Amino acid sequence: MQFSSALLESAVNEFSRLPGIGKKTALRLVLHLLKQDEQQVAHFSETIARMRKEIRFCKRCFNVADGDFCSICANSYRQQKTICVVENIRDVIAIESTQQFNGTYHVLGGVISPLDGIGPDQLHIDSLVERIEKENTEELIFALNPNIQGDTTIYYIQKKLLGRDIRITTIARGIAFGGELEYADELTLGRSLQNRLPVEKYMNR
Amino acid sequence: MQFSSALLESAVNEFSRLPGIGKKTALRLVLHLLKQDEQQVAHFSETIARMRKEIRFCKRCFNVADGDFCSICANSYRQQKTICVVENIRDVIAIESTQQFNGTYHVLGGVISPLDGIGPDQLHIDSLVERIEKENTEELIFALNPNIQGDTTIYYIQKKLLGRDIRITTIARGIAFGGELEYADELTLGRSLQNRLPVEKYMNR
Repeated sequence: MQFSSALLESAVNEFSRLPGIGKKTALRLVLHLLKQDEQQVAHFSETIARMRKEIRFCKRCFNVADGDFCSICANSYRQQKTICVVENIRDVIAIESTQQFNGTYHVLGGVISPLDGIGPDQLHIDSLVERIEKENTEELIFALNPNIQGDTTIYYIQKKLLGRDIRITTIARGIAFGGELEYADELTLGRSLQNRLPVEKYMNR
Repeated sequence: MQFSSALLESAVNEFSRLPGIGKKTALRLVLHLLKQDEQQVAHFSETIARMRKEIRFCKRCFNVADGDFCSICANSYRQQKTICVVENIRDVIAIESTQQFNGTYHVLGGVISPLDGIGPDQLHIDSLVERIEKENTEELIFALNPNIQGDTTIYYIQKKLLGRDIRITTIARGIAFGGELEYADELTLGRSLQNRLPVEKYMNR
């Protein structure tokens, strides 16, 4: 792409460094910003810079936070003795959007994956075990992605908690709503047969 | 979407105001920036703000420019007596990328479109006519989109130049390279039959 302005070119280059944004999309975004008020664009750029500079990670659950603790940990209406273990911040947002969970979270920052060189030490697992001990947590819910890495992580953490009086569960795996049986993979279909629910319980939801 | 951080939320909102970027994509971009160095993100935001603040429009052709004139107008190796008329900056970039044009441009800033309330007065048409007069332009090439608005604009400008000694052309319309005849619309196919080229001329390109 040939630009007649170095300012335009460097702005396009900055945008095209973002994931999933190619040169053409970057150009479209930059030309859109060029049409906006100078003040609006200044606000855009300040918000981004401020977000990166001031955002903190919650000292308790490692979720994003504006101060020392995130708004979920700081909320006394939430059940502090229930912890939902997730891989990353995006999962927290996904679960919060369901409005079905009223406990707290613990963001691991990834899952155990020897092939990618990620061991338990690089994740927030020790802090989770300490937290459970200190806070006398009553239930631990694993909401990890259903794959080998997720299962390994569940197995590892669960082993660390052996002997503790704590209820450990994982979110249900099964056929998704709107999904079709014939297209489900065998593992999912097999597991959802094994973990079948009494119809009364299913209908009561 | 539920956020546990106001800083995160406002950054996501800013990104999702851009065209073609929804909340989920905005979140992905923001979380990507969150993983980058603070310095890198500061550079990103400064580049955007600076681009909007400092970019100028060329006083001669209305292309984007870093100073009073764009780099194309300022380049004495380009044929200053040939003007290619385009709708917007994106078209300049598209034509420059072909490396087939060595003249200058004139960016209209749109095309005549009564339905959208855009008349000749809102476009850089008067300045084009003045420029042609002042600079003794020899050729005017219209590179507008092939639709009614584009054709109306060509007709309007061409009428304003009646009686002048200037060659007025438009880029060729026809079947695109890689296109298939049977899927071409009738208008394009009909016009490309009317405007057929001698094979020698076609092969010499």
